[in-house]
Amino acid sequence: MQPNTIDYSPGIRSFIPLLYVAWADGLLSPSEVKLIDQQINSLDELSQSEKEILRGWIDPADWPDSQVFKIWVQLMRESARESETEILKSIAALGKVMAERAAIEGRSAWQGGKTYQALKFLEEELGVPGVLKFRAIQPKPSDGTGKSAANARAIQDWLDGPAGDVKGRVKKVLSDPVFSYEEHLSKEAYRDRALLWLKLLGEQGYGSLGFPQEYGGKDDIMEYAAVFEVLSYHDLSLAVKFGVQFGLFGGSIFNLGTKIHHEKYLQKIGTVELPGCFAMTETGHGSNVRDLETTGLYDPDKGEIEVHSPTYSAGKEYIGNALHGKMATVFLQLIVQGENHGVHAVLVPIRNDSGDLLPGIRVEDNGRKLGLNGVDNGRIWFEHVRVPRENLLNRFGQITLLGRYESEIPNPSKRFFTMLGTLVAGRLCVAMGALSAAKSAITIAVRYALARRQFKPDNKSVETLIMDYPSHQRRLMPKLVEAIALHLALSDLIQVYSQKGRQNNRDIEAMAAGLKARSTWFATDAIQECREACGGKGYLWENRFADLKADSDIFTTFEGDNTVLLQLVAKSLLSNFKEDFNDAGIFGIIRYLGTRVSDRILQLNPVYKRKTDADHLRDPRFHLHAASYRERKLLHTLGSRIRQMFRKRITPYDVFLRTQNHMIILAQAYVDRLILEKFQSKLDSLEDPVSRKVMEKVYQLFALHQISNHHDWYLEQDYFEGVKTKAIRRHVERLCADVREDASILVSSFGIPDGLLSAPIAFGRM
Amino acid sequence: MQPNTIDYSPGIRSFIPLLYVAWADGLLSPSEVKLIDQQINSLDELSQSEKEILRGWIDPADWPDSQVFKIWVQLMRESARESETEILKSIAALGKVMAERAAIEGRSAWQGGKTYQALKFLEEELGVPGVLKFRAIQPKPSDGTGKSAANARAIQDWLDGPAGDVKGRVKKVLSDPVFSYEEHLSKEAYRDRALLWLKLLGEQGYGSLGFPQEYGGKDDIMEYAAVFEVLSYHDLSLAVKFGVQFGLFGGSIFNLGTKIHHEKYLQKIGTVELPGCFAMTETGHGSNVRDLETTGLYDPDKGEIEVHSPTYSAGKEYIGNALHGKMATVFLQLIVQGENHGVHAVLVPIRNDSGDLLPGIRVEDNGRKLGLNGVDNGRIWFEHVRVPRENLLNRFGQITLLGRYESEIPNPSKRFFTMLGTLVAGRLCVAMGALSAAKSAITIAVRYALARRQFKPDNKSVETLIMDYPSHQRRLMPKLVEAIALHLALSDLIQVYSQKGRQNNRDIEAMAAGLKARSTWFATDAIQECREACGGKGYLWENRFADLKADSDIFTTFEGDNTVLLQLVAKSLLSNFKEDFNDAGIFGIIRYLGTRVSDRILQLNPVYKRKTDADHLRDPRFHLHAASYRERKLLHTLGSRIRQMFRKRITPYDVFLRTQNHMIILAQAYVDRLILEKFQSKLDSLEDPVSRKVMEKVYQLFALHQISNHHDWYLEQDYFEGVKTKAIRRHVERLCADVREDASILVSSFGIPDGLLSAPIAFGRM
Repeated sequence: MQPNTIDYSPGIRSFIPLLYVAWADGLLSPSEVKLIDQQINSLDELSQSEKEILRGWIDPADWPDSQVFKIWVQLMRESARESETEILKSIAALGKVMAERAAIEGRSAWQGGKTYQALKFLEEELGVPGVLKFRAIQPKPSDGTGKSAANARAIQDWLDGPAGDVKGRVKKVLSDPVFSYEEHLSKEAYRDRALLWLKLLGEQGYGSLGFPQEYGGKDDIMEYAAVFEVLSYHDLSLAVKFGVQFGLFGGSIFNLGTKIHHEKYLQKIGTVELPGCFAMTETGHGSNVRDLETTGLYDPDKGEIEVHSPTYSAGKEYIGNALHGKMATVFLQLIVQGENHGVHAVLVPIRNDSGDLLPGIRVEDNGRKLGLNGVDNGRIWFEHVRVPRENLLNRFGQITLLGRYESEIPNPSKRFFTMLGTLVAGRLCVAMGALSAAKSAITIAVRYALARRQFKPDNKSVETLIMDYPSHQRRLMPKLVEAIALHLALSDLIQVYSQKGRQNNRDIEAMAAGLKARSTWFATDAIQECREACGGKGYLWENRFADLKADSDIFTTFEGDNTVLLQLVAKSLLSNFKEDFNDAGIFGIIRYLGTRVSDRILQLNPVYKRKTDADHLRDPRFHLHAASYRERKLLHTLGSRIRQMFRKRITPYDVFLRTQNHMIILAQAYVDRLILEKFQSKLDSLEDPVSRKVMEKVYQLFALHQISNHHDWYLEQDYFEGVKTKAIRRHVERLCADVREDASILVSSFGIPDGLLSAPIAFGRM
Repeated sequence: MQPNTIDYSPGIRSFIPLLYVAWADGLLSPSEVKLIDQQINSLDELSQSEKEILRGWIDPADWPDSQVFKIWVQLMRESARESETEILKSIAALGKVMAERAAIEGRSAWQGGKTYQALKFLEEELGVPGVLKFRAIQPKPSDGTGKSAANARAIQDWLDGPAGDVKGRVKKVLSDPVFSYEEHLSKEAYRDRALLWLKLLGEQGYGSLGFPQEYGGKDDIMEYAAVFEVLSYHDLSLAVKFGVQFGLFGGSIFNLGTKIHHEKYLQKIGTVELPGCFAMTETGHGSNVRDLETTGLYDPDKGEIEVHSPTYSAGKEYIGNALHGKMATVFLQLIVQGENHGVHAVLVPIRNDSGDLLPGIRVEDNGRKLGLNGVDNGRIWFEHVRVPRENLLNRFGQITLLGRYESEIPNPSKRFFTMLGTLVAGRLCVAMGALSAAKSAITIAVRYALARRQFKPDNKSVETLIMDYPSHQRRLMPKLVEAIALHLALSDLIQVYSQKGRQNNRDIEAMAAGLKARSTWFATDAIQECREACGGKGYLWENRFADLKADSDIFTTFEGDNTVLLQLVAKSLLSNFKEDFNDAGIFGIIRYLGTRVSDRILQLNPVYKRKTDADHLRDPRFHLHAASYRERKLLHTLGSRIRQMFRKRITPYDVFLRTQNHMIILAQAYVDRLILEKFQSKLDSLEDPVSRKVMEKVYQLFALHQISNHHDWYLEQDYFEGVKTKAIRRHVERLCADVREDASILVSSFGIPDGLLSAPIAFGRM
């Protein structure tokens, strides 16, 4: 039954925008048809015959013909012409206007309140992106920048959390002209600049924030990390130099040394009176710290440690501050009474106050690098350099007055890993720094896309904003939401870590390692995507991608190579897994692993496989189940493979080689779950309703996009059927368009000062 | 039944290495068990009781216990100690040695020829990677460099094809010290250098290779592209400058001009006496060339064209040679007798012989860029600049003496695309240039991985080569084989294009656009992966990644933004698709699209879904079917979506927006299929048996890895079941280890001269 225009009652008109949009791209799945049907049925504002007409129009077997579509478009155009832009973003609102117009024209009385509610409900439920809604009747696209700065501010406060205050202060400092960017500096000039900047920050007390109060600090790692985060909006060379001086050099003395060292050095380090190095990595032994070659031989007669690099490959490699430093924390094999006690840290002066190298010290400039040329990296060798016994950082192992080695941690392997545990803060900062670089890139690319127009439908129209191309949304929106998700996870972990203090904690170490890998890879990927999304403009030095890309690149490698870190994460997960069954003893574990898994999360839910309704797809419990399932399943299969291999007497090293790729994937699944969980719990605590509405969409896109990255695995495991992955993909596309509506607010909420952002294309200057 | 050591006959011993390796990682799938069983059964060299024992050992329900494994390892160790390294790479060879040893010890007479053959067959079929085979009994890993340079040379000749000769000559030229790399040049110094280099090449005749013989050329685009390929091993600024002068500027005159222009300019362009620009892109209209703003107004009284940039955004943007050029090919809206005839190209002198700008010309330096700083990019505006009528490049449209516009192509849209067709050569060169950069990166990373050791199983062993880590193989080997696949596809297309000459050909345009997008994205990705695979060493300027990364980055954007190009490809596919049914008329197409597809390739083969035997997985017909299925299916669903939307009166522009992501995916599937097909046909023609054996593994890894990139789609479409994707994944891992064995030969076969490679870490200098 196809009514004439004359029959279009207000009730029917209310529904036209919904039906038009819903049919336009064949959007109606069976469950969606059912949903609309239910709403129509329940409305007592509609007559039976109205309901019949509407129901006819949602019948997939007999959908409206093109003549009907034409009438709909006409009717919508008429009402649209008189309406405000906001109304054209809502199916329900436009329907309401159309109905009221018809009523005013005297056709009938019409209340319509419940109908409007029903349409609003459906609009939300079907999730049709605003920007696609009425293109046919609204040639001028919106620029999406009309929303208030207040929203952005509220979200920023939430994202900044308790560190908001210190962040604001650092931004103020960086707005001083002395911090302005300069093009193509020579290596030497850039290094001088970075040193000058470092000293300015030290003088203002920002360097010692993580140290105890008695040495000028605030004992607050969270504030320290917040400074690092903000510096990374500015110049990554400065951020890295800051991290080397205060985090690595200062941190090694704080974490591995004892009161005597703290009193002697921390204050001077905080003010950069004593610039120093963290000399761990060696040329021949990159990630393999345990096998480094430098030796520290204790001479009991003189009470001195003789620090020596026996070969070229024993040279300390890529050491930051190597050209400026006066002292180095040197990691070496400590040999006392002829016995090697493993890797320890010893303080070695390397330059005098005039900046001349001390005897026995050789330093070689690493030369120009891909990026971070403001950091003075170099190689350092030691030739029989003697330092007093007290220079051993002796918190975890010491040499007694009588010349004997002592440690509260008798197991050398455990001692080694305890010392490495002090790298956690650095990893968290590096993760945050990489993320800051990514946020800068995303902000520039999003702002450019909200200003740049290209191609137009016809000669009468203006060109389309590139942000309105689905392919462009698909490029940038997943990056935008992932940046937010990572920010929440990292901030939360930094807060937890900051509260725990110097205690070792394997869980935190694993989380920090995993998030460092994820965040730094994300940054590399996101900055590249953003550069490309800005086309040739992104290639100009002035638009910042050049430095963002080059400087952040090494973040995937330093402070622990990502691939190596993920293997550490996997090993930690395997240990936890074993510990879960400690009571049952080793046979219990084996039996457990052998039987086909009683872990509840691993029981497939047959309903989940095919469920595609919006409620389900947006249910955080579904997201968490999917992420946890993947993690647990990968852990179980890894455990079981390893057990089988051990039974076959495969050597542990071979087992490691054969399961290496599996371990890396497991660690990634763990990080996925971790970030998702953190986002969910953060969202639960978000009270401001406006921010929450925005952030829920952000969460939805993040969660579903992350799941969709592993569709192949879920399908392979029979956790999903094809109908579900298709529905998720469609949902992701819609959510990209949804989040695009708030893109401007979201990048503003990162709170990157204009002066630091700097790129002309981020401010409409093409 | 578990026999004692004493019972281990030569026949049984032959099989021990196979069984050890096969069980070690639970490698035996049911079909593999069956395969081994068949071989055992068929051997008349084995007694019934021997067969029973062996069959007992392959029973998954009752596999050998750890005691048996221990005996196997002992026996293997004994024989391994006396054997050469090569033998330790082969299951069959070690088995043979073990059997012969037992025979000599007098236990029995043993022929064993058929058994050896059977084991060789199984070894091949089960595809156990050599490097993992006997780690337990062979602590010293092989460095994989023992094979002969002759193999590399043979493969190089095959890869180089008929252009090998000219490539060799260019490499010779580039070995001159004048071409050596220099660190951190200022923009001006670098530009001067690039200009000097360009002139040297021009003087040697390399620039005019693509021009007709009467103007100093060889009319050989293939040789021209080969030069570009080799220059890209050296310095991408030079390659781009070369492409701008000879390909774009010279090419525009050759392709869009007529004899009068050729005679006047080509010779001078070839020698760089006349340096010039290709001024197409405008600030406001990046990829949207059709809507550019610059006008060329014909003045019939004076017989002059007045070239004018009416606004800031009409400025020509990012024009290479803008600071050195004396003339520009300017693309503009040609207005004759008050009518706009669309985009045409006009030659405009911009500088006099002293290098001063001519009146009315404004040039602005683009400034420092992320990379390619040896290329002098700038913006150019024209203020009512007048040039004679003859300066119109009039091959496709001209102004007559009487001042009327004439063209053999009356349809303006067709004329526009015909002119753009001349961009094909540039796109092919850019694709090849990006690939050269990727090959340099891959060569450096592979050589480093074959020299660098890190971590060791225990204190007695040497550290493991990082190339022997599965995760490292998984990183680099897929890139290595993809570089080869892309090289074959591009070389082939360049040859075809070179033979066709200047004729327009939509298929070639689509292939060039698709391969340009694929190759440049591949380069970005591969160079990044290689940088990370070299850790901190990869970050040092001297190791080349800095420049490779920065310089190649823009390749994804220029000569057609990749995302835009892929949409062109998709549109071309849709047109072909429509043409297939031209006879049936429009209703035929609609009917065709509406019915559920009779395209034969789209019929699901239920056997395919679960088939996992090695024969099938390695069958090129399977690979091609999978690739074609994906392409056709995506094309059909796209066609059908578009048809539905048209029926619903969605405007064409909205249809385009709504299907944009679908189009991009379709175009990528088309490129996948194209490359696969080219590889297959190239491989068919490869006669040298040694090269062929190597290249077959390369092909296998490429084909399966490419399929595995789309597992999610194949599973979703029910083309595969999970059991198959798992088998493919396992196969890909094995093939990575297989190809690793030839990695050294393969990177040598790229034929990049040591001097151009230059990176110290590629030559064992850490």
